[in-house]
Amino acid sequence: MAPGAKKGILERLDGGEIVIGDGGFVFALEKRGYVKAGPWTPEAAAEHPEAVRQLHREFLRAGSSVMQTFTFYASDDKLENRGHTQSFTGQQINEAACDLAREVADEGDALVAGGVSQTPGYLSCKSEDDVKAIFKKQTDVFVEKNVDFLIAEYYEHVEEAEWAVQVLKSTGKPVAATLCIGPEGDLNGVSPGDCAVRLVKAGAHIVGVNCHFDPETCVKTVKMMKEGVEKAGLKAHYMCQPLAYHTPDCNCQGFIDLPEFPFGLEPRILTRWDVQKYAREAYNAGIRYIGGCCGFEPYHIRALAEELATERGFLPAGSEKHGNWGAGLEMHTKPWVRARARRDYWETLKPASGRPLCPSMASPDGWGVTKGHADLMQQKEATSQEQLKALFDKANKSQ
Amino acid sequence: MAPGAKKGILERLDGGEIVIGDGGFVFALEKRGYVKAGPWTPEAAAEHPEAVRQLHREFLRAGSSVMQTFTFYASDDKLENRGHTQSFTGQQINEAACDLAREVADEGDALVAGGVSQTPGYLSCKSEDDVKAIFKKQTDVFVEKNVDFLIAEYYEHVEEAEWAVQVLKSTGKPVAATLCIGPEGDLNGVSPGDCAVRLVKAGAHIVGVNCHFDPETCVKTVKMMKEGVEKAGLKAHYMCQPLAYHTPDCNCQGFIDLPEFPFGLEPRILTRWDVQKYAREAYNAGIRYIGGCCGFEPYHIRALAEELATERGFLPAGSEKHGNWGAGLEMHTKPWVRARARRDYWETLKPASGRPLCPSMASPDGWGVTKGHADLMQQKEATSQEQLKALFDKANKSQ
Amino acid sequence: MAPGAKKGILERLDGGEIVIGDGGFVFALEKRGYVKAGPWTPEAAAEHPEAVRQLHREFLRAGSSVMQTFTFYASDDKLENRGHTQSFTGQQINEAACDLAREVADEGDALVAGGVSQTPGYLSCKSEDDVKAIFKKQTDVFVEKNVDFLIAEYYEHVEEAEWAVQVLKSTGKPVAATLCIGPEGDLNGVSPGDCAVRLVKAGAHIVGVNCHFDPETCVKTVKMMKEGVEKAGLKAHYMCQPLAYHTPDCNCQGFIDLPEFPFGLEPRILTRWDVQKYAREAYNAGIRYIGGCCGFEPYHIRALAEELATERGFLPAGSEKHGNWGAGLEMHTKPWVRARARRDYWETLKPASGRPLCPSMASPDGWGVTKGHADLMQQKEATSQEQLKALFDKANKSQ
Amino acid sequence: MAPGAKKGILERLDGGEIVIGDGGFVFALEKRGYVKAGPWTPEAAAEHPEAVRQLHREFLRAGSSVMQTFTFYASDDKLENRGHTQSFTGQQINEAACDLAREVADEGDALVAGGVSQTPGYLSCKSEDDVKAIFKKQTDVFVEKNVDFLIAEYYEHVEEAEWAVQVLKSTGKPVAATLCIGPEGDLNGVSPGDCAVRLVKAGAHIVGVNCHFDPETCVKTVKMMKEGVEKAGLKAHYMCQPLAYHTPDCNCQGFIDLPEFPFGLEPRILTRWDVQKYAREAYNAGIRYIGGCCGFEPYHIRALAEELATERGFLPAGSEKHGNWGAGLEMHTKPWVRARARRDYWETLKPASGRPLCPSMASPDGWGVTKGHADLMQQKEATSQEQLKALFDKANKSQ
Repeated sequence: MAPGAKKGILERLDGGEIVIGDGGFVFALEKRGYVKAGPWTPEAAAEHPEAVRQLHREFLRAGSSVMQTFTFYASDDKLENRGHTQSFTGQQINEAACDLAREVADEGDALVAGGVSQTPGYLSCKSEDDVKAIFKKQTDVFVEKNVDFLIAEYYEHVEEAEWAVQVLKSTGKPVAATLCIGPEGDLNGVSPGDCAVRLVKAGAHIVGVNCHFDPETCVKTVKMMKEGVEKAGLKAHYMCQPLAYHTPDCNCQGFIDLPEFPFGLEPRILTRWDVQKYAREAYNAGIRYIGGCCGFEPYHIRALAEELATERGFLPAGSEKHGNWGAGLEMHTKPWVRARARRDYWETLKPASGRPLCPSMASPDGWGVTKGHADLMQQKEATSQEQLKALFDKANKSQ
Repeated sequence: MAPGAKKGILERLDGGEIVIGDGGFVFALEKRGYVKAGPWTPEAAAEHPEAVRQLHREFLRAGSSVMQTFTFYASDDKLENRGHTQSFTGQQINEAACDLAREVADEGDALVAGGVSQTPGYLSCKSEDDVKAIFKKQTDVFVEKNVDFLIAEYYEHVEEAEWAVQVLKSTGKPVAATLCIGPEGDLNGVSPGDCAVRLVKAGAHIVGVNCHFDPETCVKTVKMMKEGVEKAGLKAHYMCQPLAYHTPDCNCQGFIDLPEFPFGLEPRILTRWDVQKYAREAYNAGIRYIGGCCGFEPYHIRALAEELATERGFLPAGSEKHGNWGAGLEMHTKPWVRARARRDYWETLKPASGRPLCPSMASPDGWGVTKGHADLMQQKEATSQEQLKALFDKANKSQ
Repeated sequence: MAPGAKKGILERLDGGEIVIGDGGFVFALEKRGYVKAGPWTPEAAAEHPEAVRQLHREFLRAGSSVMQTFTFYASDDKLENRGHTQSFTGQQINEAACDLAREVADEGDALVAGGVSQTPGYLSCKSEDDVKAIFKKQTDVFVEKNVDFLIAEYYEHVEEAEWAVQVLKSTGKPVAATLCIGPEGDLNGVSPGDCAVRLVKAGAHIVGVNCHFDPETCVKTVKMMKEGVEKAGLKAHYMCQPLAYHTPDCNCQGFIDLPEFPFGLEPRILTRWDVQKYAREAYNAGIRYIGGCCGFEPYHIRALAEELATERGFLPAGSEKHGNWGAGLEMHTKPWVRARARRDYWETLKPASGRPLCPSMASPDGWGVTKGHADLMQQKEATSQEQLKALFDKANKSQ
Repeated sequence: MAPGAKKGILERLDGGEIVIGDGGFVFALEKRGYVKAGPWTPEAAAEHPEAVRQLHREFLRAGSSVMQTFTFYASDDKLENRGHTQSFTGQQINEAACDLAREVADEGDALVAGGVSQTPGYLSCKSEDDVKAIFKKQTDVFVEKNVDFLIAEYYEHVEEAEWAVQVLKSTGKPVAATLCIGPEGDLNGVSPGDCAVRLVKAGAHIVGVNCHFDPETCVKTVKMMKEGVEKAGLKAHYMCQPLAYHTPDCNCQGFIDLPEFPFGLEPRILTRWDVQKYAREAYNAGIRYIGGCCGFEPYHIRALAEELATERGFLPAGSEKHGNWGAGLEMHTKPWVRARARRDYWETLKPASGRPLCPSMASPDGWGVTKGHADLMQQKEATSQEQLKALFDKANKSQ
């Protein structure tokens, strides 16, 4: 299919279609051996294109409507900052990522989205012009490579996201923007509703959240964004790309502060059934761009596509190897395993951890430091702090 | 490197080298969208070679010394039995699998092992000749493709494994044999020690276990095999390829009977630190062929190679993207995350599940049926049944 | 010591003393065989005085400064309502309870408090006059028996508590008032701060909460009451008598709605060390009347008195049989048990449940019904509902 | 009723009656403030007779057929050894305990049992004559006070228990003997079956276990005793008095070695429904003297009597305040609480701990020391050690 023949992202969303995002490249490729935890930079796009291409293909096959370029943390300042050995320049990495995304997108009906994310420059208080120049450099590659739309993602401060949106907007391409925040709002205490309004006003067509929290928390946060936007009399599309980890116990900074981050998160991984529940809840909340972030593997994305197959009118290619609600087990030799080939079994199962010496919740260890950010949080209304504390108290002190 | 230049499997083991196996193709490719849970057949070797090749590469990069051909359940009777749509013949699948394994093995210093596994024929009481004919068909391909050695793996009955070993042995190639049993022995109640003796007598150079149980249980079982072989005045090498799932609560049939099998096992997944502990315990038990089965992803195999790097004298290629014991976190911006960049942090962490409504252990749901197999179990000494019940009681009734 | 020689409750609190309350008669006597779960009525005061007397003595010995008359649910309408077999009249039960409390109080320096609690009359919409007449009947007994002060306790609606306070106030005796509410406020959604202000205005000298929630939640709620009272420019003393059960997972109606109520709460019981933590937190919050409710056994009360022994200047009699922070273990024969005779051991212990098939949190099963109370909750600000839902979501949906 | 009118213990058991024992005085009175944890000595019988009498009454009311004299650890050498302040002599304590037990036993149809337990003398290697002299001193009091039968209880070494039985036997009264052992046998590795045979041969009419383990483990151990006795062609009655704590994770020394012992055991406390299950299992195993030890409160004993009410033909007095299987909840105001008034609700409930930061199992911390007892354990067959290790591995290492 020629790229030109595809409907654009806004055309799809305006038409009421459900757009399925992709999953978490950084975490998936860390487990496959191509990304280093800590720096989390995407040089693999240039170094090991076969690995990145294969992961794109798996997401496409799982039902993704969008191939995001593997350009997370691919700004020059980040690549330098995190000790990336310079076999490839930032430009080469960004270009390679675009080529890979396009190659696989054109094997199906997917769109290519170029992505920019938060920068060390902003945190070290560089000027708006300096930070925008960093975004501009990546964006120039996206324009040259003619991606289909742009995403500003993974921002902890709405201000930096606004700057990113303004740069992306200047390309004339559709723009999506997601913050890595929860119901408490950004790290300056700007509420989800206010964040969303500011992003829409900055030019974003699609707003939402990604990373840092589990699906329940993310859907809740996007709902707050939607309410804010609607209250302000504005219009937008909504997107949600949460973690594939259960994080009921994390505080306003998300899973980074959990003691298990990033090398002990396994017991928290969502099952495919957890993902189907998320898909339904996101859909019911009016979110139409539904994907995943860290932890989302191809089978998680397939679960999104399967849950919403009726609404979308089709199953993904990957469902050729997956029976609906465990139906593949019908061919199992053991009768008690065959008995698991049904929806209510998997929907109500409370899976055991096999770890009797481990607890079910943890205390976020960055809490002290978070509280130290009192100055950053002064704009935040007292009740919000109180709410936060309440959640923490529930998880942390009540035992 | 020319294949001829490589040391053979027995040369390596006789020389005291540690051989690192690979991980679980069936489960990994199910999550990537290429294998169907239920049938679990490997037609992807022919249908989607790029996906299988990529997984081989990831294991090679992670440190695997062996590329097992992706021929699990690739006997003709299994492929027919499980409803495989016949785009490819069993022979084509087996050949494709050999070619992929060889291609990637020759990108490094790895050997190719051709694998045969248990057959529906044996369970439906076909004759020894019939069952051996099934094994012979796959083995012919392995001989034609000139694999480096052969593995009979995943047998619940030692008798069938003996037949397989006899067929494999007739090729003149080195033979390994692993049963999917725990300390209770095979499904006829033959003890691990007796099983091992029979396999060695049948001609296996390497004996051990794979699949069905977690590393602790598997190492314990292989120890029992080793004791049996030594007591009988025989000699062998030992191998261990366990699940990457914690299964303290399963009964003699292994994880199949856990209510979470196969779609809710996520909370049980081993961390990389769990795997390092396993590597050390297997090594200390005198096991020198150390790998994984279902659930083992490339980063789990890398953890084996990293734990034993001093003994082996080198790190795997994939460690270029992995700091030892979390060292990559030293570059993290948040000081409390940097503080996690140390061995004792990860070694002592008890990871939370984030699932406060879930238990830590489950009751195997096939128990009733297992007890019904009393006829199969009549050869088993009473104490063994008693022991089994004790373990079950601990997990099941004591709450 | 003659009763006249004792300092009164207000004299004590005005003088900065810490008053230690007693524990939960209804639950303790249910376990001892004298109270029926369901009706929860106190006819044992007349039927089995020796059992009630003994429990008073144990609390006195544990350090209680107050003997509450065992008159919970001893209003006539309640006794009738709950099927009490009429061997004794309500008046006889109330009188017997006063005599027992006085007898034991005079064995030490404790005061007698007469208690009234919520009535079926209020719930069935009887008039203010009718409900007050019910309270008056019990209060007449307290005046006749000359108790030292009065407590209106266990009210879910602040309005009913105000009526009770007004009746108690008319006796001229000091009045305390506690609601069984959490941070969400009463069942009409009146916030803890507003509840406290109304109770103080109605004449209560001491305000606070009892029952329904764990210590953390109760201390938090009393803090909100204190803030409300101070903001209103009023003055009061504060009291707290929580459950001895961990209830991080309950909703606005408290532990009644937990699936374990009332016959499966054992795994939630506070250790003595949990109680010491509570004592310190209550003290730090400015609460000076610190006791317990359902689940508090004599050793829990002793833990309060031991934690605050320095502030109070003395240990309770019962500490003759209790080493500080486990010191009694120093005489144990086994060295590894002797090693537990230290504060940091018990302060940091995370006690296991021995129940691997059980979860750590539950879903309150009355939630649906609670939501049905929308009419009752209409006065409640939206954010409060939102907060409540958030807490529920954390516990209930995030797994 | 005159004592002479009562049927004796053997008359009852020979006649097929179920004898309900009492609960754990030491632990119950520690929580009530009369026993010191660490020494665990019973001077309260003389110092605070009202407290001991009340506890006897509660057990009688709950259905106990036996009042055990509160003489645990009341041998002279123990009282001295554990720092008992000598307000009362050992003889005075033993006499007071007999009087209290008799007084309450005669308020109903209960028998009085005089009890002796293990001595420091045996552990410090005193001679058989010396140790027997210690038992003799207590036994003389029991004879003088004319108790109905005698119990040698809480022995870790069968040899010491044999000596005790021989002394008790010389009185001419019926003798029961219980060891505090699990399936691993005594601390010298003598199996439960062999222990039981030795006790019967020494003269015990009733044999079994008490303390140290949960009901499941104790019932299992008594079954092994019964098998041993029957295999030896002997006859006996069987008794079982387990902990009221879940201890699936403890090793051969029992709950002493759990990190929660003795001040953090709350989450492990049995519910009344757990006790009913135990009563049924003990009954089905042919045990007819069914009681409890540490942790058993009156309501636990009542649960025994209620579960076996049909077999016994009557309910205990205390059931006047307890609806069968939660029936008392039928009068609750809230419909969803009323819905809990049914057997299947309580039988299948998996009670939550309310402690999300705590694990479900613990590692016994005395393990290292236990392994050091290798010399003591040399008589024990290897498989038994192996079994023990297996259980430990399950609980301890598998996570």
